[in-house]
Amino acid sequence: MNDHRWTQLRTHMDERALDCLLITDPKHVGYLTGFMSDPHERFLGLAIPKEDEPFLIVPALDLEAAKAVSSVPTIRTHTDTDDAYTLLHGWLGSGRGMVGIEKDHLSVARFERLNAALGASGYADVGGVLSALRAAKTPDEIEKLRAAVRLIEAVLTEGLKHVRVGATEIEIVAELEYQMKKLGAEGPSFDTMVLTGDNTALPHGNPGQRKIEAGDMLMFDMGVYLDGYASDITRTFAVAERPNNEAVKIYETVLAANLAAIAHTRPGVTLASVDAAAREVITEAGYGPYFMHRLGHGLGMDVHEYPSVHGANEELVTEGLCFTVEPGIYVAGECGVRIEDDVIVTKDGVDVLTTFPKELTVIG
Amino acid sequence: MNDHRWTQLRTHMDERALDCLLITDPKHVGYLTGFMSDPHERFLGLAIPKEDEPFLIVPALDLEAAKAVSSVPTIRTHTDTDDAYTLLHGWLGSGRGMVGIEKDHLSVARFERLNAALGASGYADVGGVLSALRAAKTPDEIEKLRAAVRLIEAVLTEGLKHVRVGATEIEIVAELEYQMKKLGAEGPSFDTMVLTGDNTALPHGNPGQRKIEAGDMLMFDMGVYLDGYASDITRTFAVAERPNNEAVKIYETVLAANLAAIAHTRPGVTLASVDAAAREVITEAGYGPYFMHRLGHGLGMDVHEYPSVHGANEELVTEGLCFTVEPGIYVAGECGVRIEDDVIVTKDGVDVLTTFPKELTVIG
Repeated sequence: MNDHRWTQLRTHMDERALDCLLITDPKHVGYLTGFMSDPHERFLGLAIPKEDEPFLIVPALDLEAAKAVSSVPTIRTHTDTDDAYTLLHGWLGSGRGMVGIEKDHLSVARFERLNAALGASGYADVGGVLSALRAAKTPDEIEKLRAAVRLIEAVLTEGLKHVRVGATEIEIVAELEYQMKKLGAEGPSFDTMVLTGDNTALPHGNPGQRKIEAGDMLMFDMGVYLDGYASDITRTFAVAERPNNEAVKIYETVLAANLAAIAHTRPGVTLASVDAAAREVITEAGYGPYFMHRLGHGLGMDVHEYPSVHGANEELVTEGLCFTVEPGIYVAGECGVRIEDDVIVTKDGVDVLTTFPKELTVIG
Repeated sequence: MNDHRWTQLRTHMDERALDCLLITDPKHVGYLTGFMSDPHERFLGLAIPKEDEPFLIVPALDLEAAKAVSSVPTIRTHTDTDDAYTLLHGWLGSGRGMVGIEKDHLSVARFERLNAALGASGYADVGGVLSALRAAKTPDEIEKLRAAVRLIEAVLTEGLKHVRVGATEIEIVAELEYQMKKLGAEGPSFDTMVLTGDNTALPHGNPGQRKIEAGDMLMFDMGVYLDGYASDITRTFAVAERPNNEAVKIYETVLAANLAAIAHTRPGVTLASVDAAAREVITEAGYGPYFMHRLGHGLGMDVHEYPSVHGANEELVTEGLCFTVEPGIYVAGECGVRIEDDVIVTKDGVDVLTTFPKELTVIG
């Protein structure tokens, strides 16, 4: 509770003259209290009145679980037959001024019930503030991210043993997800992607029944949640034999772009310039139009979170930021290559969490 | 487009004097147009002006995919640099009256942008109408549900071959999810649950490292999405030997409750009475307090959808409704048993989609 998160949040409330915050995004609640849960359609919230102690509101059936971990000591509950918004009005009282809510998370239906019960003088969006707080990772969070990366790299190592000419994309996906569970992951952090041959040229292709052939490129893009934090890695391999010269050139260009972006990243440069560092390498090699997505995205309690690493984002890189660096080149009918690392910004550069080798490797 | 769905929707617009509908829940859009997609943070919508042809709005990169399947011929697109709401204003024009939106789905942030661009005279919630439309399954939808059930039952059959004393819950989960992929499922329809021994007494327990022991009860609760439709089945087994008398009594009571609810279900009775039919059997056997959840939930394009089958729902059972029948008894420190079927309401009773045997069976 003496955490820098709370100090910054209270400062923000003062600056914007907010009378109260009502946080309902389960990950934001987990970030601030340590109680991570998925309440489904039930009400979960963290109320932070300006002049008072915060309190956590959980479904009655989650009380024991919340008590066991919550750093916020006051926990109030509601049952399935209670109206949580009426209770909230009782706890917060009438005559509230400006209330901070997460406008991207709260539905119109829930907002209408909240407003009917609370009748505050107005509502301000604080979703962005919480996302920005979450972007600055603490040493403890960095260790959790590193552990999630270690786990997915162990899965990749195991998975590669099962690659053979004739195996289908979905067979490899099944094997990888089996390994994730076996090694203790909470689950994949997104749909595991294994693409071969032509399919590698689809940045968001769906694994299917295509069989691996000798001479194919084979792309893995996957991650896990472990202890509440996500990993996300992409590696592209050649199957059975050295690929043709065009594919080799594409691979070496993507690798050079990945390395250029990593070398450029340090506190004080813009996120746009990190994207540009990779994009310039690809453009100079003549593949500019074939790198049609942003360089990366924030990584933490969500696999895609603030900030977005794209060419128009003039926000500055700061220490503790964690994001992906994932340039790619996709030539339809030929092949696609993407190489993705997870990096943490340090005082004067980056710590690359992903350690799996990136040199062009022939497998299977 | 001559579908009964559209006729009913247009009738509803007339009755409530709605000037236009803007549908943005991807499953509702898929239900009405045949175009199923996950747009993530991009805008996806179906606009239905009162006096005009409907049009689908998709991210530019989804245009070809939408064209290939959409029953709504007019498809408009927006790029990542467009403001979709401004475009929408251009397409729909000014001076709109009451606009129907899904208040449970639309976030406050999106609603504020929509309202700023469109400035309609008011907004009505049509989420419930769409859910109710989706609840009446067509023969084509019933076949898809049946196929999703067949697939999960094949997974269960395969999975049972891997049950042995000493295996952990998560090892069995991994094997089941491997089989789902292998058999062609789009994915699990929810987190696959495998619980043993004491853990079976937790209605929403998380599979962990507990090892299966002889004499345990072993509970499977799982489902898949196949061709856009969900299945959901629970079966409870005894491991290695006949369980103690108490466990047998619990099992037989749950099975009798399941059968009583199924026998009671037909058009015209209330959903509350279906819940009651099962609950009476359990209460009479002295386990009333140990059946602490509703009897079931609607099943279709979502694994949990309208309607909810609980003791206070006085809505009537109607032909074409699909829902789960899943009574359970959970005695802490002893064991838990749940038996769940998926049923479709017919003209004069039900068609039970799940066919896996329900008699108490010793496995492993």
